[in-house]
Amino acid sequence: MTQQTLQVALGDRSYPIHIGSGLLQRADLILPHLGRKKAVIVSNETVAPLYLEPLAALLRANGVAVSQVVLPDGEEFKDWPTLNRIFDALLESRAERSTTLIALGGGVIGDTTGFAAACYQRGMPFIQVPTTLLSQVDSSVGGKTAINHPLGKNMIGAFYQPKLVLADIDTLDTLPERELKAGLAEVIKYGLIRDPQFLGWIESSLPGLLARDKVLLAEAVYRSCAHKAEVVARDERETGERALLNLGHTFGHAIETGLGYGVWLHGEAVAAGTVMAAELSARLGWIGPAEVARVESVFRLAGLPVSGPDLGVEHYLELMRHDKKVEAGKLRLVLFRGIGDAVVSDAASDEQIAAAIAARVSAA
Amino acid sequence: MTQQTLQVALGDRSYPIHIGSGLLQRADLILPHLGRKKAVIVSNETVAPLYLEPLAALLRANGVAVSQVVLPDGEEFKDWPTLNRIFDALLESRAERSTTLIALGGGVIGDTTGFAAACYQRGMPFIQVPTTLLSQVDSSVGGKTAINHPLGKNMIGAFYQPKLVLADIDTLDTLPERELKAGLAEVIKYGLIRDPQFLGWIESSLPGLLARDKVLLAEAVYRSCAHKAEVVARDERETGERALLNLGHTFGHAIETGLGYGVWLHGEAVAAGTVMAAELSARLGWIGPAEVARVESVFRLAGLPVSGPDLGVEHYLELMRHDKKVEAGKLRLVLFRGIGDAVVSDAASDEQIAAAIAARVSAA
Ligand SMILES: NC(=O)c1ccc[n+]([C@@H]2O[C@H](COP(=O)([O-])OP(=O)(O)OC[C@H]3O[C@@H](n4cnc5c(N)ncnc54)[C@H](O)[C@@H]3O)[C@@H](O)[C@H]2O)c1
Ligand SMILES: NC(=O)c1ccc[n+]([C@@H]2O[C@H](COP(=O)([O-])OP(=O)(O)OC[C@H]3O[C@@H](n4cnc5c(N)ncnc54)[C@H](O)[C@@H]3O)[C@@H](O)[C@H]2O)c1
Repeated sequence: MTQQTLQVALGDRSYPIHIGSGLLQRADLILPHLGRKKAVIVSNETVAPLYLEPLAALLRANGVAVSQVVLPDGEEFKDWPTLNRIFDALLESRAERSTTLIALGGGVIGDTTGFAAACYQRGMPFIQVPTTLLSQVDSSVGGKTAINHPLGKNMIGAFYQPKLVLADIDTLDTLPERELKAGLAEVIKYGLIRDPQFLGWIESSLPGLLARDKVLLAEAVYRSCAHKAEVVARDERETGERALLNLGHTFGHAIETGLGYGVWLHGEAVAAGTVMAAELSARLGWIGPAEVARVESVFRLAGLPVSGPDLGVEHYLELMRHDKKVEAGKLRLVLFRGIGDAVVSDAASDEQIAAAIAARVSAA
Repeated sequence: MTQQTLQVALGDRSYPIHIGSGLLQRADLILPHLGRKKAVIVSNETVAPLYLEPLAALLRANGVAVSQVVLPDGEEFKDWPTLNRIFDALLESRAERSTTLIALGGGVIGDTTGFAAACYQRGMPFIQVPTTLLSQVDSSVGGKTAINHPLGKNMIGAFYQPKLVLADIDTLDTLPERELKAGLAEVIKYGLIRDPQFLGWIESSLPGLLARDKVLLAEAVYRSCAHKAEVVARDERETGERALLNLGHTFGHAIETGLGYGVWLHGEAVAAGTVMAAELSARLGWIGPAEVARVESVFRLAGLPVSGPDLGVEHYLELMRHDKKVEAGKLRLVLFRGIGDAVVSDAASDEQIAAAIAARVSAA
C-alpha cells in the first residue's frame, strides 16, 4: 500500500500528515523535520514495548541523539505530575529549545506531550506519531494539547501545532478491539457533521473496518484527516466552525467526568452524546425520527453505546455547564440541522436538554 | 501629568500600553478590554492590601463581576503549585474562556498570571497591571510568561500577549528602594543595547529617578517600553533581535540560580551580569576600558552591584550552560560591540568567559 499525504495549511505553521503502512520505518519522512538531530521520544508502558525501540534505533542509525520518557498508561495520568516527568527528563538531559519531542502513542500521550512541547522553554518542536485510531483521525491533527485538572477535562492546555503527523496504520494491528471501536466514533463524527457521502461509505464499510482491513482503515483515516485539516486551517483557535467537531462532546464530557475519567472511553462517550444531540435536535423539530434512527444505527453498527449511563439528569446538566462550551452561562451545543449538517446553537432550553438526556439514558 | 500611550504592533494581537499617574482609577482605559464584564484579579499578599480593593471596587461599580486570587509573595512561589491555585480559583468560580485575568503586581505575578491565562482552557484574555519598575519597563510587555522549574528559571512557559498594559507610575510610591534600583537595571539595559542617547539621559537623570521624580519615572518607563515594543513587534518569539534584551541575563541567571532564587534580585543579577558581559567584550577586543568603566559606572550610580558573588567559575559556567540561550551545546551571549550596540555571539571560548567572570566576582 502506498502512503498518502495531506497538508494542514496554517501559513508558517503548516505541516504534513503522512498516512499509510510501514511509516515507522521511513526515516526519509521523519529526518527532514529533526533540525538539530536531537530527539526525545515520549510514550507509555503499553506502547513503548511495541514500537519505541525500532523507532529509536532507526533514528539513531541516522545520527539522531535519542532519549526517551516512558509514562504510565491511562487517562488518569494526563495530569500535572506526569507532565512534570517530561519536563524533568528534558531538563535532566539538558534538552535544548531546538530538540524535537516525539509523541508515540494514543491521544493521552499526544495531548500531554504536545502540551509539554508547547511549554518547555516556551515552545520546542514536536512530532505526533499517533498509534490509536482516535488519535490518527482526530487528536494528533490540529494542535489542541492539554492535560486534565481535577475539576475538568482538558482544562489546562495550549493550541500548539506539531511539525509532522505520522499515522502508521500498521500500529492499529495491536490496538484493543474496544479502542478501535471508540476511534470509529470520531470517524463517524465527520460524516455526521459535514459529509453525508462519507457517512454512507462508513455505513457500508463498517464490517471491513471492524475486521481491520488496512485499505479501508487507511481510507477512513485519510478522509477523516482531510476533514480535520480543512476545518483547522479555517479556524485554528476554535472561534467558529471548529466547534462543530465537538459534536456529542459536551454530553460526552459529562459522561466521562460523571463516571470518573477512563471508565468509559472518549469515543464511547461521544457516541452516546451524539445520540443525545440527535434526540435534542429532533425535539427542537430540526430533524425527524428517521434521522435520529440513522445516527443511532451507525453507532450501533460500530459496536458503540447509543445511550448514556443514568447519572441523573440534573447531574448531567451540572457537568455540562462546567464544560468549555459554556459562554455567558448559556449552554451552547452542537446540534443537527440534518445528517451531514451540524450547527452550534444555544436554542435549546435546559428543560429540553434535560428531556433529551432522560430519553437517552439507561441503567448502568 | 497626562497619560502617554504606546502600541505593541503585532497584527491581531496588538495592544496598547498606557503609562502615567492615576491610571488605576481610569475605568475608561480598562473597560473596553473586558468583553464579558467578568474578571479575576490575581495579586499577592504585599500588593493586594495596597491596590486590589480600589481596583476591584472601580470595576464592580462599572458592572464587572470581579473575583480575586491572592498568592504568597516571592520568586519561590513562581512555581507549579502556585500556578495551580489560579487554576483552582478559576475552575471553582467557573471562569469561562472569555473571562479576563488581571495581573496586579510585579514580574512574578505578571509572569505567573500570564502563563495561567495562556493555559486556562487553552487561552483566556489577560491584562497586565505592573506595579514594580521592572515589570513596568520590561516584564509586562512582550508576552513572555513562565514559571520556574527546580532545575531552571522560567523553563516552563508560553509566548502569550496581554490585551492591555496599564503602568500606573503612582504605584511606584510604595515600592521598596531596593526594588526601584533593580528596575533601573532594565532601564539602563535599553540604553546600553540600542540607544546611547537614552543612556546619556539616564546617567544625568539617575539622581532624580532615585528620588522618584514622577515626570522622570514616567519618561523612563515610556522610553523603555517604546524600545521593548519595537523589538517585540519585530521578533515576537525571540528568533533574532529580541535575544539582545537578554544582555547580562545569562550571567545573571547563573547568579540567581547559584544563590537560590530570590537572594539577589533579578535586576541586581542583571547589573553584575552586564558588567561581566562588558568585561568579556573588552577581553575579545570589541570595546575598550573606557566603555567597560562607563557600564560599571552607570550601574554604580543606580546603587546596583557591579560584581557577582564568588560561586566558583566552574559553577558559573555549569549554570550558564543550563540557560535557554545554549544552542547546540555552545554558549551564546549578548556582548558589546560598543555602547548602545549589543550583539548575540558565541565567539567567546569557555576560557575567556571564565576569565571575565573571575575578574568580576567578589567575596559575598
Ligand atoms: N487533542 C485533540 O484534539 C483531541 C481530540 C480527541 C480526543 N483527545 C484526547 O485523546 C485522549 C484519548 O485518546 P485515545 O483514545 O487514543 O486514548 P489513549 O491514548 O488512552 O489510548 C488508548 C489505549 O490504547 C493503548 N494503545 C495506544 N496505541 C496502541 C497500539 N498501537 N497498540 C496497543 N495499544 C495501544 C494505550 O496505551 C491506551 O491504553 C483523551 O484524553 C482525549 O481527551 C484529544
Ligand atoms: N516576562 C518577561 O519578559 C520578564 C522580564 C524580566 C523579568 N521577568 C521576571 O520578573 C520577575 C521579577 O519581577 P519584579 O522585579 O517585579 O519582582 P516581584 O514581582 O517579585 O516584585 C518585587 C517585590 O515588590 C513587591 N511589590 C510589587 N509592587 C509593589 C508596590 N507597588 N509597592 C510595594 N511593593 C511592591 C512584590 O510583592 C515583591 O515583594 C522575575 O521572576 C523575572 O524572571 C520577566
